Amino acid sequence: MSTQPISEPIYDVVGIGNALVDVIAHADDDFISQQSLVKGSMTLVDTDRALHLYKALGTAVEMSGGSAANTVCGVASFGGKAAYIGKVSHDDLGEVFGHDLLAVGVHFSPGHHLDGIPTGRCIIVVTPDAQRTMNTFLGVSSFMEPNDVDVSVVSSGKVLYMEGYLFDRDDAKAAFRKAARAAHEAGREVSLSLSDSFCVDRHRDDFRALVADEVDILFGNEDELLSLYQLDKFEAAVAAIRRDSSLAVITRGPRGASIITREEIIDVPAEDVPHVLDTTGAGDLYASGFLFGYTNGYSLKECGILGSIAAGEVISHVGPRPLVELHTLLPKF
Amino acid sequence: MSTQPISEPIYDVVGIGNALVDVIAHADDDFISQQSLVKGSMTLVDTDRALHLYKALGTAVEMSGGSAANTVCGVASFGGKAAYIGKVSHDDLGEVFGHDLLAVGVHFSPGHHLDGIPTGRCIIVVTPDAQRTMNTFLGVSSFMEPNDVDVSVVSSGKVLYMEGYLFDRDDAKAAFRKAARAAHEAGREVSLSLSDSFCVDRHRDDFRALVADEVDILFGNEDELLSLYQLDKFEAAVAAIRRDSSLAVITRGPRGASIITREEIIDVPAEDVPHVLDTTGAGDLYASGFLFGYTNGYSLKECGILGSIAAGEVISHVGPRPLVELHTLLPKF
Repeated sequence: MSTQPISEPIYDVVGIGNALVDVIAHADDDFISQQSLVKGSMTLVDTDRALHLYKALGTAVEMSGGSAANTVCGVASFGGKAAYIGKVSHDDLGEVFGHDLLAVGVHFSPGHHLDGIPTGRCIIVVTPDAQRTMNTFLGVSSFMEPNDVDVSVVSSGKVLYMEGYLFDRDDAKAAFRKAARAAHEAGREVSLSLSDSFCVDRHRDDFRALVADEVDILFGNEDELLSLYQLDKFEAAVAAIRRDSSLAVITRGPRGASIITREEIIDVPAEDVPHVLDTTGAGDLYASGFLFGYTNGYSLKECGILGSIAAGEVISHVGPRPLVELHTLLPKF
Repeated sequence: MSTQPISEPIYDVVGIGNALVDVIAHADDDFISQQSLVKGSMTLVDTDRALHLYKALGTAVEMSGGSAANTVCGVASFGGKAAYIGKVSHDDLGEVFGHDLLAVGVHFSPGHHLDGIPTGRCIIVVTPDAQRTMNTFLGVSSFMEPNDVDVSVVSSGKVLYMEGYLFDRDDAKAAFRKAARAAHEAGREVSLSLSDSFCVDRHRDDFRALVADEVDILFGNEDELLSLYQLDKFEAAVAAIRRDSSLAVITRGPRGASIITREEIIDVPAEDVPHVLDTTGAGDLYASGFLFGYTNGYSLKECGILGSIAAGEVISHVGPRPLVELHTLLPKF
């Protein structure tokens, strides 16, 4: 689908997504049921619901999040070059979000400023089983529209990486399409994360059309893939994705990941993590490792191993971004 | 010094101090020297310096802090009743600060609102030796003045607990004196934390007069006590404090703490902590344990042990407040 690059890329990966600061608190399963939450899912919430949940939760910690933002930070942590497009406000959380991108060397393209609408936040409830349940108040991030997409940034990245979460709003979806078009016109590749099985449910037809027509690399987990094709057997879903996509990277939790091309299926084991503390960011960081490898000349199997290493690091502690510099974990292949 | 209580207290401890959100990042010793920081100290910084340091630091995590606020949260975590007086702004960090007090059941008395001045923050650099170096941008917290002290709250607490850090500004010092007077008039006790040896250096005469005239329980560490009396031997400083104060609680790092009265000196060992990760909040939480015990009928030795337990918990992880409910760690005496 790609044409030849028209100029040398500056970035390995350009991410685009909802710019969010995570508000992370621990709670037990009773809290999940009392608040009618669906464990492991991402739910969009309005201001009142966000305030209600926040009030009900105990002491929280704030740290930058956002799915695609986590991914590009992981790429940078491996030593790759990355950029990010997403909207924040001129408030404390917006400042925090911008700082944490720049601090790891990610170029930040914040789009056009809008006054009076706060930076988005994701209230994450971590249960004792290390599962995370996400409640997203999109704030200004939901006002992403095509004008916020800096085409010069997109066309400077080897791979464009986009969150499926963008599909929850039409303007963001239009921004997504503009970015994908710009990437392909510059001879780059376009990748998409399915993000959440409920998100796939909400936008199944759009996702299927995209995967078949515009996406070069698809990321998702097993549930999301099954939801995409409304199937209940992994093997059947693999057959379906091989018809639609030339490269799909499907994570399967503790069973590792499958890298699926039309020619082969490469199974990569998960890292052995003695104490899984918080699964937030596992999929995002798997994509970091894979994309760092993919844009730096590693084999598909090696890309998968880098994904497992990055995901293993991020689930061993609280928070959605690596606490160690991932390049220190690079194996000798 | 106290008269008889005029009504039943509502709170075990009422804290008053600089309301700050901590911005915590890890860095190595080179960063400390490059930025001309004094390891282990607290330095007041202006907006430009705060922005400069923040920009130079890597990925950070935000969580509520403030010395006396940490202490009252620890008291609440033990199952005690606590209130807090300190100024925040109507911004994201102010919201975070208020939430994290209410989340553990601490009554929050935020004083009078001031527009346009941000909530204070403390940029904390944690080095690999688990030492913390604090750079405080006081923001609106520095505008604390006598009108912000709700006398009805102060007079409802068995013990008033105040940070020495308040002494860096005259209005806050006046607020401190108003609170101390209100507490004594209600028959309560007044306690003070010396906070930092540099802070003691800056205000030695004030602190000495206070300790002799207005403070019933003095908290501090060995360095601060030595600085208070400009002595270099612990035994000499102990003799000095016994002349001025009827109860002093002096922490000595890994050597534990000494509880000093005119009648006796009780040495309490430190908790055995296998991996000390971040010493932020160690002194604050020692005071939590001591004051929870003191206001709930425990012996002085038991109060000291509770202090060691709380300090041991907080230095075993990143962040200045307990991650476990401290009442679950209460020993059977």
